[in-house]
Amino acid sequence: MITVHGFSPSGNCHKLRLLLEQLGEPYRWVEVDSSQGQTRTPQFLALNPNGKVPVIELDDGRTLSESNAILYYLAEGSRFLPADRWQRAQALSWMNFEQYSHEPYVAVARFIAGWTPLDSPRRAELPALRERGHRALAVMEQHLRTHDWFSGDDYGIADIALFAYTDVAGHGGIDLQAYPALRAWLARVRATERFVALPEPDAQAAQRIAQTA
Amino acid sequence: MITVHGFSPSGNCHKLRLLLEQLGEPYRWVEVDSSQGQTRTPQFLALNPNGKVPVIELDDGRTLSESNAILYYLAEGSRFLPADRWQRAQALSWMNFEQYSHEPYVAVARFIAGWTPLDSPRRAELPALRERGHRALAVMEQHLRTHDWFSGDDYGIADIALFAYTDVAGHGGIDLQAYPALRAWLARVRATERFVALPEPDAQAAQRIAQTA
Repeated sequence: MITVHGFSPSGNCHKLRLLLEQLGEPYRWVEVDSSQGQTRTPQFLALNPNGKVPVIELDDGRTLSESNAILYYLAEGSRFLPADRWQRAQALSWMNFEQYSHEPYVAVARFIAGWTPLDSPRRAELPALRERGHRALAVMEQHLRTHDWFSGDDYGIADIALFAYTDVAGHGGIDLQAYPALRAWLARVRATERFVALPEPDAQAAQRIAQTA
Repeated sequence: MITVHGFSPSGNCHKLRLLLEQLGEPYRWVEVDSSQGQTRTPQFLALNPNGKVPVIELDDGRTLSESNAILYYLAEGSRFLPADRWQRAQALSWMNFEQYSHEPYVAVARFIAGWTPLDSPRRAELPALRERGHRALAVMEQHLRTHDWFSGDDYGIADIALFAYTDVAGHGGIDLQAYPALRAWLARVRATERFVALPEPDAQAAQRIAQTA
């Protein structure tokens, strides 16, 4: 059985939970609180020298890191990865877009708002992160005006990758009101079979988010 | 024939040139100077709404963006992409590492040093970028102490992706002296058949690099 080492509030980690649930594949989940330094311990660095969750571990001890590489690995041979070479390439392109042009802004703004102290100097980064986040959302909106999904003709791992942090962009102060096609796509993803939502932020994170301008 | 829209000094673009040369696949190269705003024109945004090079264009006008997705597309079915599912996943993992934990530091430090004016306010970012770049190189060094390649048992697209900016990290003031296994790997990549090096920086970029502390 696959073991996932992950932090439940992390969208990167939740991507794996969503796919594993939708695949109907059994897994163990080991909670690693990256906001409390648990990814910097010698034990964790032995799993992933880059010190990041998620990591999956097979029964024989082999490990694989990087959320989108894990999604690809888990989805091979399933309906969540396009069988067509060109569509598969487009899905990978959107997953690279997610990690380079979306997550570093949309996810980081959310992390700073909810998981750093209210007096953290990192809060000065929020306006620039939000502006770059909106640029990424505008690129998604343009695609969604003429396409239903990011993974080709059907829902798949590129949708899972992009859904994770887009759905909770509001936590970081990034409003989705200006993106009707994107909001319709979020609703389509939420309506997929065996969909599971990211857990709500805990009380402390929720309070910080509420107090973030 | 594939058309590559790319900026020759860009490592992300050079990845494609290196793989296409090593595949022996003919291609056209259309130069797009992203340092001069040529990726923000309406014509270019029609190719890639995210405004980034490289983009490949097929004869029928279809386009694909994101360097590592393009590498994967071009390499499918060749010896540059592992046939084994687990090795393929590890290659994708390293390519995601490259785009998330390496390129935003190693490549951006180089870009700022060589392709922004000597009085650019962005130069204040250099110390932090170099520190994060060294963290990525240390992770690579650890892997290379016990492995020859990043793409599985043989040289492949994860090596191409990581080689691009690692080989020219010095342009951004990131010294490779502390990484012997990494330097041996760079030499192994340079010795692969039909290897082509990134072009030397032009006179202006070279002068800026020389004057960057």
